[in-house]
Amino acid sequence: MSMLPEKMKAAIMKEPLRIEIEEVDVPEPRGNEVLVKVMAVGVCGSDIHYYEHGRIGNYIVEKPMILGHECAGIVAQIGPDVRNLQVGDRVAIEPGVTCGKCENCKAGRYNLCPDVEFLATPPYDGAFVQYLRHREDFLFKIPHELSFEEAALNEPFSVGIHAAKRLQIEPGSTVAIMGMGPVGLMAVVAAKAFGASKIIVTDLEDNRLEAAKALGAHHAINVRTQDANQVIKELTDGKGADAALETAGNPKALQTALGALKRGGKLAVIGLPAQNEVGLHIPFISEYEVEIYGIFRYANTYPQGIQFLSSGISDLSLLITDRYELDQTQEAMERARTNKAGSLKVVVYPNGFVENEN
Amino acid sequence: MSMLPEKMKAAIMKEPLRIEIEEVDVPEPRGNEVLVKVMAVGVCGSDIHYYEHGRIGNYIVEKPMILGHECAGIVAQIGPDVRNLQVGDRVAIEPGVTCGKCENCKAGRYNLCPDVEFLATPPYDGAFVQYLRHREDFLFKIPHELSFEEAALNEPFSVGIHAAKRLQIEPGSTVAIMGMGPVGLMAVVAAKAFGASKIIVTDLEDNRLEAAKALGAHHAINVRTQDANQVIKELTDGKGADAALETAGNPKALQTALGALKRGGKLAVIGLPAQNEVGLHIPFISEYEVEIYGIFRYANTYPQGIQFLSSGISDLSLLITDRYELDQTQEAMERARTNKAGSLKVVVYPNGFVENEN
Amino acid sequence: MSMLPEKMKAAIMKEPLRIEIEEVDVPEPRGNEVLVKVMAVGVCGSDIHYYEHGRIGNYIVEKPMILGHECAGIVAQIGPDVRNLQVGDRVAIEPGVTCGKCENCKAGRYNLCPDVEFLATPPYDGAFVQYLRHREDFLFKIPHELSFEEAALNEPFSVGIHAAKRLQIEPGSTVAIMGMGPVGLMAVVAAKAFGASKIIVTDLEDNRLEAAKALGAHHAINVRTQDANQVIKELTDGKGADAALETAGNPKALQTALGALKRGGKLAVIGLPAQNEVGLHIPFISEYEVEIYGIFRYANTYPQGIQFLSSGISDLSLLITDRYELDQTQEAMERARTNKAGSLKVVVYPNGFVENEN
Amino acid sequence: MSMLPEKMKAAIMKEPLRIEIEEVDVPEPRGNEVLVKVMAVGVCGSDIHYYEHGRIGNYIVEKPMILGHECAGIVAQIGPDVRNLQVGDRVAIEPGVTCGKCENCKAGRYNLCPDVEFLATPPYDGAFVQYLRHREDFLFKIPHELSFEEAALNEPFSVGIHAAKRLQIEPGSTVAIMGMGPVGLMAVVAAKAFGASKIIVTDLEDNRLEAAKALGAHHAINVRTQDANQVIKELTDGKGADAALETAGNPKALQTALGALKRGGKLAVIGLPAQNEVGLHIPFISEYEVEIYGIFRYANTYPQGIQFLSSGISDLSLLITDRYELDQTQEAMERARTNKAGSLKVVVYPNGFVENEN
Repeated sequence: MSMLPEKMKAAIMKEPLRIEIEEVDVPEPRGNEVLVKVMAVGVCGSDIHYYEHGRIGNYIVEKPMILGHECAGIVAQIGPDVRNLQVGDRVAIEPGVTCGKCENCKAGRYNLCPDVEFLATPPYDGAFVQYLRHREDFLFKIPHELSFEEAALNEPFSVGIHAAKRLQIEPGSTVAIMGMGPVGLMAVVAAKAFGASKIIVTDLEDNRLEAAKALGAHHAINVRTQDANQVIKELTDGKGADAALETAGNPKALQTALGALKRGGKLAVIGLPAQNEVGLHIPFISEYEVEIYGIFRYANTYPQGIQFLSSGISDLSLLITDRYELDQTQEAMERARTNKAGSLKVVVYPNGFVENEN
Repeated sequence: MSMLPEKMKAAIMKEPLRIEIEEVDVPEPRGNEVLVKVMAVGVCGSDIHYYEHGRIGNYIVEKPMILGHECAGIVAQIGPDVRNLQVGDRVAIEPGVTCGKCENCKAGRYNLCPDVEFLATPPYDGAFVQYLRHREDFLFKIPHELSFEEAALNEPFSVGIHAAKRLQIEPGSTVAIMGMGPVGLMAVVAAKAFGASKIIVTDLEDNRLEAAKALGAHHAINVRTQDANQVIKELTDGKGADAALETAGNPKALQTALGALKRGGKLAVIGLPAQNEVGLHIPFISEYEVEIYGIFRYANTYPQGIQFLSSGISDLSLLITDRYELDQTQEAMERARTNKAGSLKVVVYPNGFVENEN
Repeated sequence: MSMLPEKMKAAIMKEPLRIEIEEVDVPEPRGNEVLVKVMAVGVCGSDIHYYEHGRIGNYIVEKPMILGHECAGIVAQIGPDVRNLQVGDRVAIEPGVTCGKCENCKAGRYNLCPDVEFLATPPYDGAFVQYLRHREDFLFKIPHELSFEEAALNEPFSVGIHAAKRLQIEPGSTVAIMGMGPVGLMAVVAAKAFGASKIIVTDLEDNRLEAAKALGAHHAINVRTQDANQVIKELTDGKGADAALETAGNPKALQTALGALKRGGKLAVIGLPAQNEVGLHIPFISEYEVEIYGIFRYANTYPQGIQFLSSGISDLSLLITDRYELDQTQEAMERARTNKAGSLKVVVYPNGFVENEN
Repeated sequence: MSMLPEKMKAAIMKEPLRIEIEEVDVPEPRGNEVLVKVMAVGVCGSDIHYYEHGRIGNYIVEKPMILGHECAGIVAQIGPDVRNLQVGDRVAIEPGVTCGKCENCKAGRYNLCPDVEFLATPPYDGAFVQYLRHREDFLFKIPHELSFEEAALNEPFSVGIHAAKRLQIEPGSTVAIMGMGPVGLMAVVAAKAFGASKIIVTDLEDNRLEAAKALGAHHAINVRTQDANQVIKELTDGKGADAALETAGNPKALQTALGALKRGGKLAVIGLPAQNEVGLHIPFISEYEVEIYGIFRYANTYPQGIQFLSSGISDLSLLITDRYELDQTQEAMERARTNKAGSLKVVVYPNGFVENEN
């Protein structure tokens, strides 16, 4: 490992729609912290939302802030108490650092930790930087067969894994997934990983539906032209799906997802609709004894996700449609913001794009 | 046991709002069936709904029908294959006879059996008769300390027990219960039985709230005058309840129940609102990783319910506000229909009201 | 379908080690019963045990009896109440017909039904006959891609599936399986079906270990020459396996299986040792918070098993080493009894062996 | 709060069977640490074992060491990062401080943390001192109705709570508990707290059985004179118990506990037998689909335990049979060691015994 620089570049959002590249100090890892040379950062829908609106719900950007939280890189320096990592290790970065001491952390549901410090969630900075300081226990070694950009996708993949586990998707399950943005697409991969034998997906855009099929979906429904609930009913012999995941944040899609369920079926609520409140059919929930699970990020998913991705479960390369250098972060954000129909995942490479990066 | 009569009286709903008493044949138990002399039948909200509107959702009364499904009695005759019951046994009657062979039955969720024959649910007759024929495995012996009218209450109690189990209410849980009709009141008893250490109830009527407190609720909120969510927040140190049960079928109550939850909290949907669709706050469900459970009747609750009631967990006598003979079934229905604020549980005694009926 | 014969051949065990072929009446299906033309019957270890010793534990053969319970066939006739099957349907036969009414049945654990009527378990006859009468709800349609002999293997496969579900084997799990007889081999397929990423198997015979690897095992340990616990420790970075299944009925193998577990690991007890009692290391169980699950047959596994087998998860043909006609049933039993090292699964074809039987 | 002293007394075990009182520095709380003035410390069986043998299994006392880990006290000083406690708070001390970062901690099973620092488990010192430094998140406020000695009992109580939760003891459960030492007795209280309606206990000593009944057991079996399995069978109508807990570390008791179970019953392995290996009846485990759970300490039990004890669930005063000052620690240990039949819980009061200590 060459000497570490003292300064690095960071892409700082000065105000909504304005990102500037600045030189800042390379942070120094203390205690059990690790300094990671950031190699790939995916642009997430939440990044775009902060970039465009300066807030998401109660999370408000109140000062210049660095976005980006789907990331992977190389260990560049380790703090004195680090035990399991060494310089040169390739790692996926789990972005939420939790307290480990509250009731939720101790019960194994650390995604509900009220004191979590989550990359790119105000007031915490994110990963559009060349070097990131992070606690060791939220870094996970990746094997050489996994590229950094794939490892970065372990973050949205984790949402799908978490949902699949909470819904108890198992071999043979029939699963309906609404919304084929990156989260929905990675949920397809998660459903496949957990053995779902019939994965039915919906979206408005054919390119996304095609991507879903390439990743493992068995049936794709374009809701512009088809009645999803009717098609799902036909595909399940009138019985309904074992599980449904709504990832689009679309009220109609949520209602469709609910209506797709069989008796005792389970619904994951992942996407956040703009208007907050969505009307759900209560007698159906009751008579079918439906179970609805709110999904918030994930917990204990990184090792399993890395294992799935390393096994080559699906070809993720088709997901990454746009690639940018750190200097082009604003372009990357604009691309993601304005080309929702065409782009799937936009990735920024803070230390340059290396073709064969493994 | 004296000789069985050949004829008996039955209270037949000829059309909505008209119930007539007729003489019909006493049925004969075959195979594993048992003839039960019906001693007490509680009037349920669904009975009133059928009586008033002739339908509930897709269940439509299409011919004269006998109502009543919360019931208990004495074994009067047994079929040739009956093994565990004998004439004279006092029994609680679980009203839904399931097929035992479908996927749901075999998986232990027989309340989701599509072929269930449920008393007083079209096209099946109910219990406002002097003798009822029922399959042995849905009859449960009751001890002498339990009266027939208490045993009849095991039916609405079972809904509460089923919800408590699905929500994993355990000792120390904080539970909010919305709606203090009979189902809500019995849910209070169920929450108490499962060890909830803080039971918070809401209703519009003070007499119901008083009954709830007498049965075991710790805090009562009259939503006419108090903001339930604010009070619940205060009662839980700002954290929210572990579990909430909505039994009123009131959209506002359902929203309040949802908002009452802590991170990872669980909501039971029991009451059916008139307008079917209720707007729920999706980001709250997601961020708090709330779990919502539809509750449809119950399964495997009768023995536990009988045990709780026999132990004298709560004094149920205060719940039974009105008592009628079988000839007065229409009066009983009218009382229940028109005195919702005053009456709690109306009970019909098809073989006469016996003061000390144990 | 041609006319049904009135008589059929049955292989009747007159006493231990003596099976005779007799002509008996073809039974007539009543109510919800189905008459199945039996096409393939696998010989199970329990069949051999009854054949050799006339008993297994408290189950004692007290009169001439027909063995065989791993079977599949074609619907030949249906009773008047049969609803979901018709003549000509190809079906797998789940051999244990349960009461559907006891506490265990109603709770979804019908394998614990004390009144189960299980094929070839005294006093109930089994499947070494040309036609078998069986209750409809324990027959499961199989697709054309599944042969009858594969469908018969769904029975031992079900044991593996049941164990995998109770142990919560999930994608990425590391699983150790002791004993590569047919049950162990099918457990390998089950572990694979549930996504185990590291399946480690042990046996004394190399041919069985080879079969296990062909079916999906990743590491095979011949315990004649290797210390299984040491190898497993190395294969798991010193951590231990997530789950272990003992199928051999060997005390040493059970101890090895226990010792193979990681903290919080889970052990399935499937094989029955001759001497009943096995010494287990209690402080290990306690300190590692191991969970041990007794496995008795299975429940609710047939549809999932058929789905796995139909998807071609593993090539089962290598498992079937010996094939016999019904007239040769005694030969088949002798082969299975005396060639334990060489034979894997011996199959009897009561209506003749049809090469391309799909 | 008066000024803190600089020196304090500690009871140091110099070698097995020799404890000396020494003056040592009062430690200073750093970061999120708290200094607790220790008010009550119960003597545990493991303390006696270390005192007598200098080791338990692989845990070896290699230098002078302070024993004691069942403790409670008053916050005397707080570190700069402490947020939820203040000087004067009365607290129960959960003795195992875990890393919060390993796989087990993150999954909510922190009792399996390999890096736990547990009071009085080599190489970590314990609580026979006047002041103890401990991490804030393992201290739990207790209400004034709870005495320090009762709060100290929350430690063995936690073992019972943890077992009750893993065995899913629920209202109406029938529970058999073997061994009425302090852990067994507190398990009785736990079973009662979780609603068990039939608690059956066994021991060799009548005084312990009497204590068990006073705490909530319904049936007591002295195994010197009665066949426990036969009595349990009679008490359960021949069916067996839902759950059994072995706390005695006695091989025969473990076998009895196993044999006491009904089909699908659950066994907790808590006590550690001297000879490590115990013969268990494997066919019973399999045929009855018994589940066996190793129990190691506890996780997430302290708040619930405090709540139970504060509610006055049982009168624990009868458990505390012997009381000593810190200077008498060796006497206390000898009392506990030599009077096993007579003494139940021996308690040491490092800052003097205060009669009305609430």
